[in-house]
Amino acid sequence: MTSTGPTDRPLLVHCCMSQKKPVLNIAMIGYAFMGKAHSNAWRQVGHFFDLPFDIHLHTICGRNKEATDKAKEKLGWSHSVYDWHEVVNNLEIDVIDINTPNHTHAEIAIASAKAGKAILCEKPLAKNLAEAKSMLKAVEDTGVINMICHNYRRVPAVSLAKKLISEGILGNRVYHFHARYAQDWLCDDQFPMTWRLDKDTAGSGAHGDIHAHIIDLGHFLLGDFDEIVASFETFTKQRPKADNPSQLEHVTVDDAAQMIGRFKSGAMANLEATRFAQGRKNNIVFEINGEKASLRFNFEDMNRLELFEADAPKSNQGFKSIIATESSHPYSGRYWPPGHVLGYEHTFINTIADFVSAIESKQNPSPSFADGLKVQAVLEAAEKSWKERAWIKI
Amino acid sequence: MTSTGPTDRPLLVHCCMSQKKPVLNIAMIGYAFMGKAHSNAWRQVGHFFDLPFDIHLHTICGRNKEATDKAKEKLGWSHSVYDWHEVVNNLEIDVIDINTPNHTHAEIAIASAKAGKAILCEKPLAKNLAEAKSMLKAVEDTGVINMICHNYRRVPAVSLAKKLISEGILGNRVYHFHARYAQDWLCDDQFPMTWRLDKDTAGSGAHGDIHAHIIDLGHFLLGDFDEIVASFETFTKQRPKADNPSQLEHVTVDDAAQMIGRFKSGAMANLEATRFAQGRKNNIVFEINGEKASLRFNFEDMNRLELFEADAPKSNQGFKSIIATESSHPYSGRYWPPGHVLGYEHTFINTIADFVSAIESKQNPSPSFADGLKVQAVLEAAEKSWKERAWIKI
Amino acid sequence: MTSTGPTDRPLLVHCCMSQKKPVLNIAMIGYAFMGKAHSNAWRQVGHFFDLPFDIHLHTICGRNKEATDKAKEKLGWSHSVYDWHEVVNNLEIDVIDINTPNHTHAEIAIASAKAGKAILCEKPLAKNLAEAKSMLKAVEDTGVINMICHNYRRVPAVSLAKKLISEGILGNRVYHFHARYAQDWLCDDQFPMTWRLDKDTAGSGAHGDIHAHIIDLGHFLLGDFDEIVASFETFTKQRPKADNPSQLEHVTVDDAAQMIGRFKSGAMANLEATRFAQGRKNNIVFEINGEKASLRFNFEDMNRLELFEADAPKSNQGFKSIIATESSHPYSGRYWPPGHVLGYEHTFINTIADFVSAIESKQNPSPSFADGLKVQAVLEAAEKSWKERAWIKI
Amino acid sequence: MTSTGPTDRPLLVHCCMSQKKPVLNIAMIGYAFMGKAHSNAWRQVGHFFDLPFDIHLHTICGRNKEATDKAKEKLGWSHSVYDWHEVVNNLEIDVIDINTPNHTHAEIAIASAKAGKAILCEKPLAKNLAEAKSMLKAVEDTGVINMICHNYRRVPAVSLAKKLISEGILGNRVYHFHARYAQDWLCDDQFPMTWRLDKDTAGSGAHGDIHAHIIDLGHFLLGDFDEIVASFETFTKQRPKADNPSQLEHVTVDDAAQMIGRFKSGAMANLEATRFAQGRKNNIVFEINGEKASLRFNFEDMNRLELFEADAPKSNQGFKSIIATESSHPYSGRYWPPGHVLGYEHTFINTIADFVSAIESKQNPSPSFADGLKVQAVLEAAEKSWKERAWIKI
Repeated sequence: MTSTGPTDRPLLVHCCMSQKKPVLNIAMIGYAFMGKAHSNAWRQVGHFFDLPFDIHLHTICGRNKEATDKAKEKLGWSHSVYDWHEVVNNLEIDVIDINTPNHTHAEIAIASAKAGKAILCEKPLAKNLAEAKSMLKAVEDTGVINMICHNYRRVPAVSLAKKLISEGILGNRVYHFHARYAQDWLCDDQFPMTWRLDKDTAGSGAHGDIHAHIIDLGHFLLGDFDEIVASFETFTKQRPKADNPSQLEHVTVDDAAQMIGRFKSGAMANLEATRFAQGRKNNIVFEINGEKASLRFNFEDMNRLELFEADAPKSNQGFKSIIATESSHPYSGRYWPPGHVLGYEHTFINTIADFVSAIESKQNPSPSFADGLKVQAVLEAAEKSWKERAWIKI
Repeated sequence: MTSTGPTDRPLLVHCCMSQKKPVLNIAMIGYAFMGKAHSNAWRQVGHFFDLPFDIHLHTICGRNKEATDKAKEKLGWSHSVYDWHEVVNNLEIDVIDINTPNHTHAEIAIASAKAGKAILCEKPLAKNLAEAKSMLKAVEDTGVINMICHNYRRVPAVSLAKKLISEGILGNRVYHFHARYAQDWLCDDQFPMTWRLDKDTAGSGAHGDIHAHIIDLGHFLLGDFDEIVASFETFTKQRPKADNPSQLEHVTVDDAAQMIGRFKSGAMANLEATRFAQGRKNNIVFEINGEKASLRFNFEDMNRLELFEADAPKSNQGFKSIIATESSHPYSGRYWPPGHVLGYEHTFINTIADFVSAIESKQNPSPSFADGLKVQAVLEAAEKSWKERAWIKI
Repeated sequence: MTSTGPTDRPLLVHCCMSQKKPVLNIAMIGYAFMGKAHSNAWRQVGHFFDLPFDIHLHTICGRNKEATDKAKEKLGWSHSVYDWHEVVNNLEIDVIDINTPNHTHAEIAIASAKAGKAILCEKPLAKNLAEAKSMLKAVEDTGVINMICHNYRRVPAVSLAKKLISEGILGNRVYHFHARYAQDWLCDDQFPMTWRLDKDTAGSGAHGDIHAHIIDLGHFLLGDFDEIVASFETFTKQRPKADNPSQLEHVTVDDAAQMIGRFKSGAMANLEATRFAQGRKNNIVFEINGEKASLRFNFEDMNRLELFEADAPKSNQGFKSIIATESSHPYSGRYWPPGHVLGYEHTFINTIADFVSAIESKQNPSPSFADGLKVQAVLEAAEKSWKERAWIKI
Repeated sequence: MTSTGPTDRPLLVHCCMSQKKPVLNIAMIGYAFMGKAHSNAWRQVGHFFDLPFDIHLHTICGRNKEATDKAKEKLGWSHSVYDWHEVVNNLEIDVIDINTPNHTHAEIAIASAKAGKAILCEKPLAKNLAEAKSMLKAVEDTGVINMICHNYRRVPAVSLAKKLISEGILGNRVYHFHARYAQDWLCDDQFPMTWRLDKDTAGSGAHGDIHAHIIDLGHFLLGDFDEIVASFETFTKQRPKADNPSQLEHVTVDDAAQMIGRFKSGAMANLEATRFAQGRKNNIVFEINGEKASLRFNFEDMNRLELFEADAPKSNQGFKSIIATESSHPYSGRYWPPGHVLGYEHTFINTIADFVSAIESKQNPSPSFADGLKVQAVLEAAEKSWKERAWIKI
């Protein structure tokens, strides 16, 4: 494999003679759920944002030829290949978008960095902290733009929460971050074994998959954790094999994870993630309590942010339900008029819009691999905490 | 103008040699809010639905050259023209999608029908009942597929309501349809005059614009109206001219409309539409009360349908909040996993998916121009009711 | 019958030698649902409010001896009698509290006025407008304190709405009053015939029973109506006789009523009352939209008032959910700390607290019989509107 | 002090010759917030429940003569005394109701037990586990009826949850108990020092005061805890002295407490209590996720229980909002018709109704002192966990 490093490609994007914008060639590896969500975002982003590049969905890559070819057609890509080295080595490609199982992130990302590609990687960054560190080293050594796809930061209502916090709405002290990410897709004990339930491929279960998201939201909104204690549970320890349901396989990851502790700011943290909450489909709820205000968000009603302000007149206080669809709200003005609500997929479009802008500005977007590493460090600390039944300093 | 009628074009769509699907060439007239929403749907529909055709965003048409060309780029169309006759007369075009001000619908639609085009028309169907009738006659005479874009029928939660009603969930009798569509964008009396506030271009105000939607939902869910009495109000009678705010112009349409009466089934109807409800951005709320169940919907939380079932055990009854994102729910399975919520734009994608299927099956989709005419008849009856201060039989 | 008029009783209340407060002797006529609610309020009011009198639950009156005696014990009264003339003629009695079927209000109230009693009367004031007028005349002629028990005015959240409106929160103009009072207790067509469904005893159905409440709330919050048009329905026209279910009796009142129109202020009105809304138990919902703010209330969550303020910063607007349990909120400070919510019965305690204060101050409380008459006028106008199928000026 | 033990008083209640019910003489110690709530319940219970006794509010006891006399008048007691030994030693008294600061519970309760009184004690049972054990021993040795006032068990919606769980609605396994009790009354750092913030009188802060309630709800609904790890915080470490604000005093209890762990059933537990959550007045929220169903409750909307049932048809699932005011619901039938909602105080009336019934049946009600001891054990384990930074087995 003859990788072409960043020094050989001073122009990251493919320019053109005309007055048209330069083209950014994207390659995406992986074509399942995240592949569908990312493809949609790549297709849509230029229609809603004023980007410095024209986006070209150049190549989709997957190991299964038939499925990859089908995805190419359905998801709008120009080419398909079946070995990720091909896109990493392809000089035409500017961006590698990694949507593969977690244990493959590191190898692909490191090779992509060496090849000078801008990298967008699905979360969690890696299978474990050591891998994550090597990934961060690779992007720092090569200077490529890198981003981890914690898409929930860019729910407009969540971005609005961030903006309000940055403006000081919480006051001088923050007391609580109380978050829960609950799903119910594993409640059925006949749900078959998948790579997501195998520690070798997934690294962890609800912990790395969804706990990671609310840990990242904690970082995003309130900063770093200081110390934590965690607990895990695997409620269903064996599941039918997908292609032979009469045979049972061992689930080697957690079904649920929980964690209490503190942020460096002194705020108390309480996080819980589970795939065993009947009726909770994709229920991300957080509440932040500060000196001057409280904020609350629930993804199942994702266009709203709830805000309580203690400075309002005493007889006139209450949680205010802000529909974050005004043009003055983050991202929302790009889409539809007020009250014409957005959905899940827009979080990816917003993410990719900022990623593409970062490629032009040559400044890493947030969350970068460095942010992903932070999440990984908390994930690993939590696992250690449970193994040792002890409080762990982050 | 040499229109090519339907008899000359036995194949409505443009076929091809390969094993690929035939291409459906779309022309869209109008490029503002609805143009953006429709373009998005045309671009997206093939990526989520298995359509009988490949969709080609062939030509966008608008009177302002610069704005149309810009929209062509931004919204993803291949060509732009500035006179709607060009697309109607273009033999390559299969579908005319009309998104122009209301007073132009009739002329364009009738010409499109004569040219044998399948027609998707924004609501309200026309400026008045006479025009609407001539449009229906045109599509019936020529046999072209026609649809009116009452997109809210295809909010998954609303389609689910329809499905449950069809299955008999309400019991033998329906007692109430209570609906309100509230916005607040005209509360500011400095908001400038627009074509939407001029009777000559818009036909009516909140009445034709948003009352029409909940009238259509009444038809969709509970059938035809029997008799009604209505009331209208224009709260702000003069507004600053857009390009010269110091000059005031007369608002000649309603700011709010309300209507009570009965469906042919005997159910009581109560509908209200307003652009003067502070804090209500795009707030479509309806409640249906039947013998055995009640249903409630609120667009600002559009992924939910509330259902009360009187047959549940007495101590276990309550309004159930169904998140209509399951694969078993209408349309939802095309997109994301349960709980990964959809937004406003998906109502158009769903509408266009059914419209395209209708083109292949050669069976008019619902709501067709005939349904649009029914809405128009109720709109006109309401206006007559207010003028005459009388109950009007539909 | 030798009634003792007010001139004979310059001291309305029964005083005493000691430094103790004078005693107010109450007689209550009727012992069913409202009798229970009023008794509770009479018992409780002195424990939460600082009243000018000690309240003595002197006599309960009902026609059925056994039931009345039982109610006396259960509800905490000292004496029971079985003919209302006895309490009206009893010189010890200061207050007559009327909780009988609607068609008896007038006779009892007029006699009570002549006897110089302060009168609290359940709503609707009378069976019809003529009776209501005679009642008002009687209290005006005799100068006795009089109040109609529209208890929902004194839900703390509703009183807070009134306070905010009085302070000008809505701005200079009000656009909409949109209210619905929905119950479901008649959905079952086997529910037996009662006096409430007989025009001779009840006057009307949902109209006088619950429509009256939201009409009164309209008066309370926004002032007088100007003109209206109304519609009525009796969904179930025959019901089994209570003591002989095999025999059917005719329902002679409405099951549902609806009404649109205008307030004198120019605000549009939309009111609906029904006993046929499955799942709605005692669901009083109103929304008010004004120039600067909107207010919303739902009795099923009665401790909250929702407030939208258009003057808030644009990116920071939303409906605020005020839990009206602060000591700064009307009435709430009398009971429990913030968030320790109140219930239905507290509306009566608050009402009676104000009624008792009015007796001391000798100034009629609101709503008085004059306010009750206004409601009656609107009720009757609505009935006339439906009979004549016409708009009616109030 | 000459206490008269239970053996001397075979008849616990004061009987009478007539056919009237025997009288139960109550003495209440303490007259502040809980004194007001308990007095109300004693006054009201007989008017809503069919009790085996007539309730006599015999004596109120407090150390401050003036305040106690005032409370006697306001709260409806016949006598007042200023030394609790007087009521414990008074042979007329059947019931001692303890509402004093936590550090006095043990001495009073033990003396009351020795005197043969039935005892209702406010929570937490005692200042610490040792005291709680001595209290339990006292009531067991003497055989007196004893109850701890965890009133939230008897919110009708919570009792309904218990009933549904007992009937098996959750299925064979329970996965999660996730609860939070949040208030905001200490957010203001100028709020003065009180006995509740002093470890010597209160034992702990949010932990014993409100964490205790959700720990008890965990016991009530899901059984015993197995092991836990906890964390505490005192956000404001000094506060102004009540009678001399310029002087600061040390807060010696927690402002917030949190705890994760497991129930003996294997369910994961996550509990948090805080007095530092802006906008949360008395916000008790819990969610239970089981194999077949989830349940959710929020005290600020206390008349509702939310129930998700996984056995419902797939397209028809959702959280059902049950308004627990039906006559078929626990306690609710005693009060008002469906939808006529109840409030905070009814939880005490329901508690006392069951306590009084227990006195007649001579069977301890739930929660008894034994249940209170269990809560105390968890409270103490949590404190130990934080002190030792370790997991603690209960």
